Amino acid sequence: MKIGILTSGGDCPGLNAVIRGVVLKGTTTYDMEFVGIRDGWRGVVDADFFPLTRHEVKGLSKVGGTILGTSRTNPYEGPRGGAENISKTLYGHRIDGIIAIGGEGTLAAANRLANDGLNVLGVPKTIDNDLRATDYSFGFDTAVNIATDAMDRLRTTGDSHQRCMVAEVMGRHVGWIALHAGMAAGAHAICIPEVPMSIDDICDLVSRAHDRGRAPLVVVSEGFTLTGMSEAYSDKGLDAFNRPRLGGIGDVLAPEIERITGIETRATVLGHIQRGGSPSGFDRVLATRLGLHAADAIVDGDWGKMVALRGIDIVRVPFAEALGELNTVPRYRYDEAAALFG
Amino acid sequence: MKIGILTSGGDCPGLNAVIRGVVLKGTTTYDMEFVGIRDGWRGVVDADFFPLTRHEVKGLSKVGGTILGTSRTNPYEGPRGGAENISKTLYGHRIDGIIAIGGEGTLAAANRLANDGLNVLGVPKTIDNDLRATDYSFGFDTAVNIATDAMDRLRTTGDSHQRCMVAEVMGRHVGWIALHAGMAAGAHAICIPEVPMSIDDICDLVSRAHDRGRAPLVVVSEGFTLTGMSEAYSDKGLDAFNRPRLGGIGDVLAPEIERITGIETRATVLGHIQRGGSPSGFDRVLATRLGLHAADAIVDGDWGKMVALRGIDIVRVPFAEALGELNTVPRYRYDEAAALFG
Amino acid sequence: MKIGILTSGGDCPGLNAVIRGVVLKGTTTYDMEFVGIRDGWRGVVDADFFPLTRHEVKGLSKVGGTILGTSRTNPYEGPRGGAENISKTLYGHRIDGIIAIGGEGTLAAANRLANDGLNVLGVPKTIDNDLRATDYSFGFDTAVNIATDAMDRLRTTGDSHQRCMVAEVMGRHVGWIALHAGMAAGAHAICIPEVPMSIDDICDLVSRAHDRGRAPLVVVSEGFTLTGMSEAYSDKGLDAFNRPRLGGIGDVLAPEIERITGIETRATVLGHIQRGGSPSGFDRVLATRLGLHAADAIVDGDWGKMVALRGIDIVRVPFAEALGELNTVPRYRYDEAAALFG
Amino acid sequence: MKIGILTSGGDCPGLNAVIRGVVLKGTTTYDMEFVGIRDGWRGVVDADFFPLTRHEVKGLSKVGGTILGTSRTNPYEGPRGGAENISKTLYGHRIDGIIAIGGEGTLAAANRLANDGLNVLGVPKTIDNDLRATDYSFGFDTAVNIATDAMDRLRTTGDSHQRCMVAEVMGRHVGWIALHAGMAAGAHAICIPEVPMSIDDICDLVSRAHDRGRAPLVVVSEGFTLTGMSEAYSDKGLDAFNRPRLGGIGDVLAPEIERITGIETRATVLGHIQRGGSPSGFDRVLATRLGLHAADAIVDGDWGKMVALRGIDIVRVPFAEALGELNTVPRYRYDEAAALFG
Repeated sequence: MKIGILTSGGDCPGLNAVIRGVVLKGTTTYDMEFVGIRDGWRGVVDADFFPLTRHEVKGLSKVGGTILGTSRTNPYEGPRGGAENISKTLYGHRIDGIIAIGGEGTLAAANRLANDGLNVLGVPKTIDNDLRATDYSFGFDTAVNIATDAMDRLRTTGDSHQRCMVAEVMGRHVGWIALHAGMAAGAHAICIPEVPMSIDDICDLVSRAHDRGRAPLVVVSEGFTLTGMSEAYSDKGLDAFNRPRLGGIGDVLAPEIERITGIETRATVLGHIQRGGSPSGFDRVLATRLGLHAADAIVDGDWGKMVALRGIDIVRVPFAEALGELNTVPRYRYDEAAALFG
Repeated sequence: MKIGILTSGGDCPGLNAVIRGVVLKGTTTYDMEFVGIRDGWRGVVDADFFPLTRHEVKGLSKVGGTILGTSRTNPYEGPRGGAENISKTLYGHRIDGIIAIGGEGTLAAANRLANDGLNVLGVPKTIDNDLRATDYSFGFDTAVNIATDAMDRLRTTGDSHQRCMVAEVMGRHVGWIALHAGMAAGAHAICIPEVPMSIDDICDLVSRAHDRGRAPLVVVSEGFTLTGMSEAYSDKGLDAFNRPRLGGIGDVLAPEIERITGIETRATVLGHIQRGGSPSGFDRVLATRLGLHAADAIVDGDWGKMVALRGIDIVRVPFAEALGELNTVPRYRYDEAAALFG
Repeated sequence: MKIGILTSGGDCPGLNAVIRGVVLKGTTTYDMEFVGIRDGWRGVVDADFFPLTRHEVKGLSKVGGTILGTSRTNPYEGPRGGAENISKTLYGHRIDGIIAIGGEGTLAAANRLANDGLNVLGVPKTIDNDLRATDYSFGFDTAVNIATDAMDRLRTTGDSHQRCMVAEVMGRHVGWIALHAGMAAGAHAICIPEVPMSIDDICDLVSRAHDRGRAPLVVVSEGFTLTGMSEAYSDKGLDAFNRPRLGGIGDVLAPEIERITGIETRATVLGHIQRGGSPSGFDRVLATRLGLHAADAIVDGDWGKMVALRGIDIVRVPFAEALGELNTVPRYRYDEAAALFG
Repeated sequence: MKIGILTSGGDCPGLNAVIRGVVLKGTTTYDMEFVGIRDGWRGVVDADFFPLTRHEVKGLSKVGGTILGTSRTNPYEGPRGGAENISKTLYGHRIDGIIAIGGEGTLAAANRLANDGLNVLGVPKTIDNDLRATDYSFGFDTAVNIATDAMDRLRTTGDSHQRCMVAEVMGRHVGWIALHAGMAAGAHAICIPEVPMSIDDICDLVSRAHDRGRAPLVVVSEGFTLTGMSEAYSDKGLDAFNRPRLGGIGDVLAPEIERITGIETRATVLGHIQRGGSPSGFDRVLATRLGLHAADAIVDGDWGKMVALRGIDIVRVPFAEALGELNTVPRYRYDEAAALFG
């Protein structure tokens, strides 16, 4: 059996650990053969394959990024796209099935291809933790650790200067990184896309922390939008000249907080450092196990599903369970954290 | 309502985060009052209490160890021990209940006190992850990260010298840290208390890795005993003069592996660094949530239980569920990891 | 003898280690007494003092920030400022001299006060490493480590997406952090205030790295200005509405690089995380030694100087040596690093 | 010009960064050609060479260990050893000179070969910092950071249990790592080979720290020998059966301290984790610069010397300056640190 592996969408610590897990289990236990597919679905439509042996994956559990490369190509677009073309391409290269490691978009495409008769198995990947049907996805824990560590640093400088520090973390549509890192770092306010807040709500929390003698820490998801946010600061991400706006929502909040509260305020946009580098122990174990179980699922012919974490177990779920709605932060989880704001 | 909090047994990253979570939730949401109990059950029997205000717990989520101190005192021993004496002591100090943060022994004592009519709530603490009824306990994730990071370092030195490196990690009775850190670091052999292995089994794995050109990494739990281990190396921990044997099982294995395989082998016993220092993001979040929910449980009068992690939720379980048997590594989890040994 | 200690200007990892070094040496070896001065020179003019005992400084060598607080107050301004007023204030509180830990501005003020007859001793502090007369100042090494670690992370994400990554680091007037962290992380271009570069120079380096199959890494000091930089991107830091421009020079460079080279480019502005948190080993040792030697200098009556690092020794130099010109990156050091750009 | 590069002796973070620095500078600036020599001097006598191109060294500045491998072979031993044989071997492979990266033994051999007419250039490598003629060698800073981080962790567990913690660090003949890491971590006693101490001296420091309410931290170099150490604990490293003694000097000290002071005491032997893994920023910069300057020195025909750090400059010194005596910790540096013991 010959299996292609691809990684698609934004990169994420743990992708290489999944690849290693699949290939080691597949080659040593099941006698499978693997090909690496370059740059996600682009490599499928372009037939950009290379042999992926055990030798290629050695030492990868700790390596960030993906040795396969990634892209945001849609496999249904372009002259060589679509289920029929892809089917022929795979047949021509004697590839029996594909393991697609990716997020919402990737899994939706995988689902559609599976419905169109191709052998596709999914592995959920989302650094934002926005996929349903898995308790966590790899990359998220690493991002939380990096963000927490950064905030620990911001707090000492905030304390020294009696400043309010605003930390912007990843999370376009969901606030999980902000919630967890903010709770871990002892934030005085957490602003996430799921929970509407006005600038006055935020300033109120900031002032209360300041009144207790603390240097306030505000954590904000990149996808957070202020209630009543003016158009110039809108989520179109453009400035008044229709040029891409520089900086993030954190850069927007900081001067507003300073203006309203009178407390000196500085923003830091953590950005891409949250998705790079060596995965945490948790993410390496999770990613490796997902890879091992993906190999098992293939041997069982369990196509059209994705492997997922449920409690401490790896399970297989139909694509449909993971798709549709995003895994947003439920209100009770936000309120739980908000009890710490004081 | 006035509540006492104690930490008992070996220390663990996250203890302070639990304490902070309880006190912040209890004081700001529920108007509770707290006293710190010094050095575990010793402070209960000695009435060694001090006021634990919100001010005392600020900034604690990132701080390792426990501000309450800890000991291994059994509350049923000594002239002032036992349920009746303790009941009087607590009554005398107008303490309405106790939150006991600890492992197997602590929770067993808490259970007995609860059965004897005292208001006791448990929070599971075990760096080894050996408690049932909770998916994970705080401290474990931090320990895995520290051990993984250490092994990443050991691997580069192993590679440079073409040596076999033996890393001994914590785990007196269960092999969870070895399993997870070993999987994360790409170990070629993992030796845990739950799975019998002879020195020849280990050397076989070492030699196979070496033959593939790798510098073998062997991870061993401190509580691992070799099948057929000679008496001089027995788990009595004594040397030939009945003096405490210096070093750990890793120090025992390394020269044996070198003797049998002919591969230069070095041991590192990671020891106490695994249980100290700032908790990981995962552990801070878990510990804080356990603390928040402990305050909720008290308000609900839900004594005689412990708070625990189930999937992504915090639940309450009777003490009995956590006691009795240890949470050992199941065979299928070991086999899963063993597929990576090659 | 009673000595006041102040920290002034931007905070920096190692400030607390200096304070601890002074107080431990002064109290245990020399029987000195210390007062902490709150918020830099502000605390001097406002007579905002508090007793600084050995107990206060315990455990501080690893703690980021400054327990004394800091400000940018000029001691010669305001109704209570100036040498004469300050002299009276100190006399009134029986303070025999001041240790001022700070950068260019602080040391210039200290020098002026010393010339006006006050007992002032300086300890150089600059995270940017822009002070002459000391080989390095504490904080710089920590900043380089944090920036290097962040860039290691950026590289894995750059590699996965075949992107150019731009990392903006601290350095308003000098490029030391960019030079060292860029060299440490294997940057393909380093842009510092001392060396003029046009956008075409940068794009040329980026394209060459890309042509060799690398994901280009560009490191830029916050104080770098492009040769021929258009007015809209000027260093006035304003946008077209005269509002403070969001983001940093990295945010300016990234879209230009992408536009000119056609290579997808992302910027990360590391910002305040570089100056917070626990100091590196190097900085703790340097800061502690500076503190120890500051106590010695005071006992010797060696006022009007600052302690400094020369090779592996701590020496005393007149303020004048450290003032005047900044410690810029010499051209040969830049060229040395540029040999690695390829 | 074709140059061979070798790494010899114990591995050290930064070796790969030196190799990368030499090769990048040599190939891009000077049009040199390089061969890698496998496993130190062994590869010279066995003519075990391989082409070392720019491609081979990419990304190496952050990678621990050495891609060349290392050994402790003496180039003057064996049938193919000696200056004449080696000269022939090099001539046969058209190798014009050798860059030898190593410690005392390596540089002594290099010196002898240079005196015997071979083109040899040295790069000092010692994780213990025991080489004269260079302010620091790469690897040392990384080891200090790792040891400091470990001790920060040990302190929280010591504080929680009111225990004395003993940390054994590297340093067979000199105490630099113990001195710097101990100072950085706030140790209450530092035991180094250069300074005689009896068990009573140590226990006195431990008890004084304990009396002040601190959990004592004792840092000890692996090469430290107690004044009056009994024969059973002698530095022969044998136990009573003439078997290699398990554990290190830290394992010896801990039970003695506990016995004498009555304070519960635990030892941790940090071991090989101090020499593995990714180098610190300081070490990457130092190692890279040494590599760059080694290429320059070769172009200048400056054989028979080694490159070294002096202040902030890289200089060239005759081998003789580095050899002979070790770079021990001077007494005034120890006393400086001892002022912090209290």
